[in-house]
Amino acid sequence: MDAENEQQAAPAETGGVQQRAGLSRRAVIGWAGAGVAIGAAGVGTVAAATMGSDTPAAAAQSQDVPFWGEHQSGISTPVQDRLHFAAFDVITEDRDALVKMLKEWTKAAASITGGREVGGGAVGVVPQSPPDDTGEALGLPASRLTLTIGFGPTLFEKDGQDRFGLKAKRPEALVDLPKFKGDRLEANRSGGDICIQACADDPQVAVHAIRNLARIGMGVVNVRWSQLGFGKTSSTTPDSQTPRNLMGFKDGTHNIAGTDADGLGKHVWVAPGDGQDWMTGGSYLVARRIRMTIETWDRASLQDQEDTFGRTKIEGAPYGKQKERDAPDLAAMPATSHVRLAHPDSNDGLMILRRGYSFTDGTDGLGRLDAGLFFLAYQRDTRKAFVPLQTKLAASDKLNEYITHVGSAHFACPPGVRKPGEWWGQTLFG
Amino acid sequence: MDAENEQQAAPAETGGVQQRAGLSRRAVIGWAGAGVAIGAAGVGTVAAATMGSDTPAAAAQSQDVPFWGEHQSGISTPVQDRLHFAAFDVITEDRDALVKMLKEWTKAAASITGGREVGGGAVGVVPQSPPDDTGEALGLPASRLTLTIGFGPTLFEKDGQDRFGLKAKRPEALVDLPKFKGDRLEANRSGGDICIQACADDPQVAVHAIRNLARIGMGVVNVRWSQLGFGKTSSTTPDSQTPRNLMGFKDGTHNIAGTDADGLGKHVWVAPGDGQDWMTGGSYLVARRIRMTIETWDRASLQDQEDTFGRTKIEGAPYGKQKERDAPDLAAMPATSHVRLAHPDSNDGLMILRRGYSFTDGTDGLGRLDAGLFFLAYQRDTRKAFVPLQTKLAASDKLNEYITHVGSAHFACPPGVRKPGEWWGQTLFG
Repeated sequence: MDAENEQQAAPAETGGVQQRAGLSRRAVIGWAGAGVAIGAAGVGTVAAATMGSDTPAAAAQSQDVPFWGEHQSGISTPVQDRLHFAAFDVITEDRDALVKMLKEWTKAAASITGGREVGGGAVGVVPQSPPDDTGEALGLPASRLTLTIGFGPTLFEKDGQDRFGLKAKRPEALVDLPKFKGDRLEANRSGGDICIQACADDPQVAVHAIRNLARIGMGVVNVRWSQLGFGKTSSTTPDSQTPRNLMGFKDGTHNIAGTDADGLGKHVWVAPGDGQDWMTGGSYLVARRIRMTIETWDRASLQDQEDTFGRTKIEGAPYGKQKERDAPDLAAMPATSHVRLAHPDSNDGLMILRRGYSFTDGTDGLGRLDAGLFFLAYQRDTRKAFVPLQTKLAASDKLNEYITHVGSAHFACPPGVRKPGEWWGQTLFG
Repeated sequence: MDAENEQQAAPAETGGVQQRAGLSRRAVIGWAGAGVAIGAAGVGTVAAATMGSDTPAAAAQSQDVPFWGEHQSGISTPVQDRLHFAAFDVITEDRDALVKMLKEWTKAAASITGGREVGGGAVGVVPQSPPDDTGEALGLPASRLTLTIGFGPTLFEKDGQDRFGLKAKRPEALVDLPKFKGDRLEANRSGGDICIQACADDPQVAVHAIRNLARIGMGVVNVRWSQLGFGKTSSTTPDSQTPRNLMGFKDGTHNIAGTDADGLGKHVWVAPGDGQDWMTGGSYLVARRIRMTIETWDRASLQDQEDTFGRTKIEGAPYGKQKERDAPDLAAMPATSHVRLAHPDSNDGLMILRRGYSFTDGTDGLGRLDAGLFFLAYQRDTRKAFVPLQTKLAASDKLNEYITHVGSAHFACPPGVRKPGEWWGQTLFG
């Protein structure tokens, strides 16, 4: 247990401002020196200790995912139930201001993924100031929150401008995605200089995280677009149930498991020599907002639905098989079925780690649900994974009768922040 | 246990179409006769039996809320974690078609709130037809799903037209809500002829319910608007923790408890002699989409935030008190604080049962989170509850600096459907 997280019985230092008794002094000390203590706590820190709140510490202990490590969490981590994803535009030209924000983000991320507030216990201390933390997650456990950062192509170069002296560091794999057949991309749901993926088992915790990072970034970044995902559609845990998408099907059964070091090394993590050194240990993320024409799908016959996937609806078994995880006989599936086209055996062993979420964002003005799949795919080199696969699917997949890609973004997610004192983007900016 | 729900070992009747073996015959039999069997099963029906799926039946048994009863469920029911709310326009002039749909909705609602599919097990039976159920909740337990229906003013009279011969049955309490000070209502987030409130602990279950009702209603109703709520902000369970809203505060501590029969009878349920007999046992629902100007709030000092509510932020204690549930000393709070203005002691004992949810719907084009509170309030007579209270709050509440009402609707929620064979709206249309 981290001594800094224990409630301080001794009178806190006042720092010249009015202060209330009985709260952690960290708020007044500020960030200085807090990093190491946070890091030393590691897995299983106690979230509630500084709050004077009612969080069951025992529950919180088992509900935080390590923030520090070789790779960022939120990629191979077992997929959490809920998502809040945000893409940001950088609105400053000041590189130092951007770096300062990334450092502050890192500290805040380490704190809130550990179930602590931003500021480490500052809420309620200084009445004359806004609280460091917005407070809506007070009393909630960490809920397996992970925060994952990525950098978009426009951070390196935008309208021909080398905005932050990063142009030479743009990885070749961070391509401008081509326009795929059928794409109907909306600018206000696409692109972004920086992304944050917040995954948690409690949506309030994920929303709180994005909001507080946006708040810290005020004047440096603006939220360009964001997306809530209410239900995961993928699993990275071997042998667990594959959740159903909004078409009622299990898709992506043979995802890369978070425990499959060989598969992750081969398909997900950027390796030394892959290109830019600063990305070693990182991964490339493609995000696609895929709208489903639910109403049309719901009028399609069961046969047509099953032919579309090449699976049975109830069991999720590949055609000609009995169980979801039976090895598929691709030749038994319609030539244009989604599983047949997307399967590694049809693509020279190509695999992508998927962490998709279902979304429903009200209606579209024509009385149709604005719903579908927010597709998140991690890979070692987008040029060899998402691009060829989506080129093929866009051309032939029977599923295209029922879906439209309306949002798209591409990000280079750097390696993990290995220890306190390091910060998000350090390998790129440092 | 309901025999109809047991998997049928005998060959199913074919009804002249190709059929697969081993599934419930109910799909072929159709709805006829199924109602009583469903009803007889009552609480604790087994959701998974007809699916051949992996739902743990034991879990499902404890997770369904009774559908049949004197009052609709979803009002005094302990507040579930997630919400999908939909307002529908009736697009037919055919009263019989509307009644037919309401009967079909009732049967479907009884089925899915019990953790069964629409059609009672029809998925996968008839390849040539669309499945009766869209399938994305297959394998999920009932998750305490409740479905609550309401009828809007425009169902009774619209543009001077008595559309379905119901004009004389419009309750006087179902007023056209006045324009309150500060209202900035958007037409596409307001009104509606019929509403369905779906509450569940799993958002996928709530979304599935709304979608399947919308599908059954095709040609009769269109979704006018819908709202997802990701986190409850109210509790109707005595002594439970009050969840925090997106301002980080506990609000509405002294809600009417679902177990408080006297309070419900006095403040929530319509009583004989209150007006239209068909509403006896029902309640009036006001839905307000309240946008928070999060970014402004987050820059307000803690003192200002606490003065706004009249509570402390961390503990939620009324000013001058120690604990959230301590009896408030209203005189100790600022005169314009939300708690002081809204408290029953400031309003001749007026109380409203609240079931609000936090929402976050992406961004607004200016980089601001489109987030806030979707306020749902049930009451015995809106003229004596929401209207005077909101008139007062709209005029004086300090909270108005940080919120804007952008959506509004009003519905008469009829009494419960007491037993199989009865249907939603029967007391109105029957």
